[in-house]
Amino acid sequence: AKEEEEKDWKEYIYNVFIIINGCTVLFMQCGFALLEAGAVRSKNVTNILLKNFLDLLIGIVIYWAFGFAFAYGKVKVKDDFGNYTGYSKANRFLGHKHFFLMDEEDFGTELLEGYPERVIHMGSFYGEFFYNFVFAATATTITSGALAERCKMSAYFIYGIILTGFLQPVTVHWTWSNGFLLYPQQYLDLPPEVYFRDYAGGVNVHAVGGLAGLVGCIFMGPRLGRFDTTRKYHIPGHSTPLTGLGAFILMTGFLGMVLGHGQNIELSATNIVLGGATSGLTAMMIKWIKPRLAGHSRHKQYWSFLILVDSTLCGMVALCGGCNIVPPYGAAVIGVLASLAFLGIEHLMIKFHIDDPLGSFATHFGGGVVGCLMTPFFMVKEHAGLDGIFFWEGCDKDFAKGLPGWEDGACLYSPFYQLAWHIVGLLCIFVWTIVLSVIVFGLLWRFGQLRVNSDLEIRGIDIKLHGEPAYPNAAYGHGWDNEGDF
Amino acid sequence: AKEEEEKDWKEYIYNVFIIINGCTVLFMQCGFALLEAGAVRSKNVTNILLKNFLDLLIGIVIYWAFGFAFAYGKVKVKDDFGNYTGYSKANRFLGHKHFFLMDEEDFGTELLEGYPERVIHMGSFYGEFFYNFVFAATATTITSGALAERCKMSAYFIYGIILTGFLQPVTVHWTWSNGFLLYPQQYLDLPPEVYFRDYAGGVNVHAVGGLAGLVGCIFMGPRLGRFDTTRKYHIPGHSTPLTGLGAFILMTGFLGMVLGHGQNIELSATNIVLGGATSGLTAMMIKWIKPRLAGHSRHKQYWSFLILVDSTLCGMVALCGGCNIVPPYGAAVIGVLASLAFLGIEHLMIKFHIDDPLGSFATHFGGGVVGCLMTPFFMVKEHAGLDGIFFWEGCDKDFAKGLPGWEDGACLYSPFYQLAWHIVGLLCIFVWTIVLSVIVFGLLWRFGQLRVNSDLEIRGIDIKLHGEPAYPNAAYGHGWDNEGDF
Amino acid sequence: AKEEEEKDWKEYIYNVFIIINGCTVLFMQCGFALLEAGAVRSKNVTNILLKNFLDLLIGIVIYWAFGFAFAYGKVKVKDDFGNYTGYSKANRFLGHKHFFLMDEEDFGTELLEGYPERVIHMGSFYGEFFYNFVFAATATTITSGALAERCKMSAYFIYGIILTGFLQPVTVHWTWSNGFLLYPQQYLDLPPEVYFRDYAGGVNVHAVGGLAGLVGCIFMGPRLGRFDTTRKYHIPGHSTPLTGLGAFILMTGFLGMVLGHGQNIELSATNIVLGGATSGLTAMMIKWIKPRLAGHSRHKQYWSFLILVDSTLCGMVALCGGCNIVPPYGAAVIGVLASLAFLGIEHLMIKFHIDDPLGSFATHFGGGVVGCLMTPFFMVKEHAGLDGIFFWEGCDKDFAKGLPGWEDGACLYSPFYQLAWHIVGLLCIFVWTIVLSVIVFGLLWRFGQLRVNSDLEIRGIDIKLHGEPAYPNAAYGHGWDNEGDF
Repeated sequence: AKEEEEKDWKEYIYNVFIIINGCTVLFMQCGFALLEAGAVRSKNVTNILLKNFLDLLIGIVIYWAFGFAFAYGKVKVKDDFGNYTGYSKANRFLGHKHFFLMDEEDFGTELLEGYPERVIHMGSFYGEFFYNFVFAATATTITSGALAERCKMSAYFIYGIILTGFLQPVTVHWTWSNGFLLYPQQYLDLPPEVYFRDYAGGVNVHAVGGLAGLVGCIFMGPRLGRFDTTRKYHIPGHSTPLTGLGAFILMTGFLGMVLGHGQNIELSATNIVLGGATSGLTAMMIKWIKPRLAGHSRHKQYWSFLILVDSTLCGMVALCGGCNIVPPYGAAVIGVLASLAFLGIEHLMIKFHIDDPLGSFATHFGGGVVGCLMTPFFMVKEHAGLDGIFFWEGCDKDFAKGLPGWEDGACLYSPFYQLAWHIVGLLCIFVWTIVLSVIVFGLLWRFGQLRVNSDLEIRGIDIKLHGEPAYPNAAYGHGWDNEGDF
Repeated sequence: AKEEEEKDWKEYIYNVFIIINGCTVLFMQCGFALLEAGAVRSKNVTNILLKNFLDLLIGIVIYWAFGFAFAYGKVKVKDDFGNYTGYSKANRFLGHKHFFLMDEEDFGTELLEGYPERVIHMGSFYGEFFYNFVFAATATTITSGALAERCKMSAYFIYGIILTGFLQPVTVHWTWSNGFLLYPQQYLDLPPEVYFRDYAGGVNVHAVGGLAGLVGCIFMGPRLGRFDTTRKYHIPGHSTPLTGLGAFILMTGFLGMVLGHGQNIELSATNIVLGGATSGLTAMMIKWIKPRLAGHSRHKQYWSFLILVDSTLCGMVALCGGCNIVPPYGAAVIGVLASLAFLGIEHLMIKFHIDDPLGSFATHFGGGVVGCLMTPFFMVKEHAGLDGIFFWEGCDKDFAKGLPGWEDGACLYSPFYQLAWHIVGLLCIFVWTIVLSVIVFGLLWRFGQLRVNSDLEIRGIDIKLHGEPAYPNAAYGHGWDNEGDF
Repeated sequence: AKEEEEKDWKEYIYNVFIIINGCTVLFMQCGFALLEAGAVRSKNVTNILLKNFLDLLIGIVIYWAFGFAFAYGKVKVKDDFGNYTGYSKANRFLGHKHFFLMDEEDFGTELLEGYPERVIHMGSFYGEFFYNFVFAATATTITSGALAERCKMSAYFIYGIILTGFLQPVTVHWTWSNGFLLYPQQYLDLPPEVYFRDYAGGVNVHAVGGLAGLVGCIFMGPRLGRFDTTRKYHIPGHSTPLTGLGAFILMTGFLGMVLGHGQNIELSATNIVLGGATSGLTAMMIKWIKPRLAGHSRHKQYWSFLILVDSTLCGMVALCGGCNIVPPYGAAVIGVLASLAFLGIEHLMIKFHIDDPLGSFATHFGGGVVGCLMTPFFMVKEHAGLDGIFFWEGCDKDFAKGLPGWEDGACLYSPFYQLAWHIVGLLCIFVWTIVLSVIVFGLLWRFGQLRVNSDLEIRGIDIKLHGEPAYPNAAYGHGWDNEGDF
């Protein structure tokens, strides 16, 4: 009884921590909303705010109805005597229980023999729901950034529902719940420490959201006036303070994103801010030095705030993958690499005339992929159970011999297998995301439901569609002959 | 000693959790401030910000001086030998101890035999103070929203002090501390599970604040230019992003509002966001579909961001009452009903030419009352100790017979008594709030201290009263011939 | 094993709490950024946002590389047999270990016999890093506020790095880690309860940051147009809502600042908000009443929002020093005194034509010093182990006789020694801060790297230096013939 009580108490604490961090992640929706609102023109501000607010609401309802079931819904298997013996294998691809959060009593973290627990949030049923729906909503929000200033409301509803309710939850199932990416050694001769490690959603949230955004962007085409055949035109956002505020909120929110997962929380917190910092500083320095090297005139050497912000976020995304298992200097290096990826992708986007107003693809996809690929290099045994490639000194052959299926010394290359498995996992998730996104956005495009007409785009969406300009002229001005004394 | 230590440790944890959630609720003041700032015209922005900031400061000081004493101040009773035997019955209406947070050592949660603990925050003396003053300040802020753009500073000070220091704390005493609404079975033949359940302040914070706002609104009259005899004119707020930011902050803050109370935190968190989501989505759909049904021209079918925001908040208010004891689908339904209440009340307000610029009454009163009335339908025994009307299968008569005073089978109708008691409680709180509000606002009105003169209202309050326009012309502009290259 | 496990569990909880509060303090950077952005003219908004964002990033990297080592790096001493016996005395002035967060395994909170633990965060290695870098970044941000609208980027980088990486961490070493201000009784005949008490950084963060800002301000000179020989001109900030938002965020953030230190958290939370409230209300009342007393015309009696905000923050700063050991009414009085200090310093700043656009010096230095000097008056034995001057009833002579070195009854005046030691500590920290600041800012000034040229200052920094105006004209406007129907 005493022990039972203690266990309950610990579960209470874990859930407290998960819920608090869930609230922080929920508040990231505010960060995204403002980041995006600041980055669009004043005529589309209400539209982008409404979409971000709706993201969250739709996310809640859809994740309650379907998403949680697809992500975490395991089916228990009974033996002949009616006793539960574990979970059905059928759910390696997709969960299919707990629709509408039903059957709470069947939820558990115990797993079939031979299915070791991979990702432990230690959350209860509702705790897991709460902490996970905010991640799904985040993915959708990332996508919405890429489609800003020209997406139809109907398109928005449809892809929002599919992304939050199905596309992203399935990738969560693969990588966090019970999916095939977590147990490669059941199919392949791999060391048991090798599995897809995406600690805080660098891939299943950020890369997925960014990639869906890219597909949407391509179908939708650039905003009117962004490119002509020979050159690009800058379309500035209407408010730096809103963007800055959004960025600060997101920076704080990223901490909720990594802390709620509950492993090595102090190290994780340190790494994620450190990776963000080196990424941001690297990008700003490059942007400042490059024109000088290229011999451009002096006035082009800008200290760009927006580059700083996006690149910092990209670095934090990159650390979402392995911030719990890499040492701080590894985090610093991963941040620098994320920065390069960010700038490279942004460069390519412009070159190929793809118009992603928020840089969602470069930030979230770039960061997520860099993090996923670099973690196998930098992870350390103390935290990961397996040293990364940079620290690898071979395995204990005696130990290896005792393990089923790989007495031949496969473990000599464990972290390389880890890297390979991450590449396999990324490819699976890319294919899944691209295929579904192409279907959804392709159909929307085919039936003319994707993009607002050009008249609405040029004049602005807020007044016509929402009846609420962001800054109505009627609300400004005063009747005094002066404003103070100077 | 070991056990003592463990108890201390648990108390420490509970207080940590209460304080963290208290901070989140404190941050709601920021949310209200921005929601309101965005919803007024630019000429009154500093005024509304100052008021919201003052709400908090006055709230702290007044709650320290008086409010906490009225809400939680119990008086211990000694027996003939000088031993404490419990708490005086005298305090069923009103607390009267701990003024200026004195006599900490007399504070305790133990209660007289037969006075079961109803609302357990498990907080310490200062923990309870901290968590409760923010609720009182919230009530005052809700009221201030209804009086925006035309209320005098003196009026503001006076009603702020009375509302935070007396009116609201007394209702807290009734419903959370030691008041008559918590122990009906001491006066009436009611089952012991029946008492006024207002888990997170849907009634004693939101409905009270909203109702006081309505009374203030009526005495004050609509803003100039809002209505003429035949029609209404829309007075738009000056900044959608500020309103949106405020709404996001409030959404997060609501979680602090329910979590700090500490029961079923995961379920509570899930329910409050779910209720908010269904409420917001319902209202937006209705607003979009209604003109179409009514045959209005197409351009009237707006996706309104402000309706979405207010209605979502209304749904969250509605779940404040019982989010800890209803199942998620109950929360979803309560959200839908809250949305209908919100729209209905807003419609009536306009019909009767009552001008509540923020929709405070509809949002907070509407939501609070819907939540209070619906909880007895949807609550479940697992969490509430009593099944709600929709799940009611009658009670165990054998069990009932053993209870004093109701061997006759009264328990056969327990949840109906629960509903009846909620109605009784609502009426008591309404009468109390209306009477005091009418006295306060009536006197202010009688002596001309309620409303600024019309010249000041037309020209705007900021410059004359505060010397600080929100956006001074002198602070804008730059000296460069262009703003970048496009 | 059981006990070990329990200890680990408690450490986990402490770190959870530290990290959560660290996140709140990190979010204060957002508060400062917006407070400052709102208080400058629109032409310098991007600049101030970028600086605040960089503060944080540089803070992370520099604190990782150097700052943490200077603040907390102790060197263990081995005996002849190779066993660790404690920490080197050499580090009374300066830490010198854990550069780049290396040698985690040597980190510990155990101390040499006779070096009692003074400041217990109970955080782990990374936990302490995370919680402390945000304080260092805060100090730098405070300084940056004083230099707003005219500081060169190069100057900014240099003083930012020195302040975050060396100046402030050394004062942290003195007052929180292992420095000479914590163990006066090792050098002087003082009662053991007497040491420098700066609970939450009122001195080592706020006063240090404010004082460095003052030095910078003096070297830099006032903004163009702020003063001429005979009078001052008001330079209004461009957005009250941004300032208000920043202030609300900071208010919440201050709670993270005091809570993470982990002592008497409920009392601390209560005191810090109470001190802020009395300070804010006092200043506003004085500002409103003063012109009336002075016989000024009625229109000068402003309810100033900005004074209210700054003064509230000043009161909270003042409570950073001793909020864990003073009773609530002490906090209220300290708040009132902080308010007077704030107004007095602001008055002097203007008199001496020192232009501190944000009031950083008055707010943070004024508050920090008031708090440090008042704590020895108001502290109580129950929490501090020593009654303050106002509660002092002399010590137990029998107890005193048993203590080494002060059998003569020195303990009769313990709290007076406490006050004296605070004065000594303040002087040490002032000298350190002023000397280093004069060197840094003096050199920058000497080599013309401190201030932007006057053309850039007049036209505004954003467009030329960052290529990103805060509100680009190109991003405003729409194409509809009206904005709605009224």
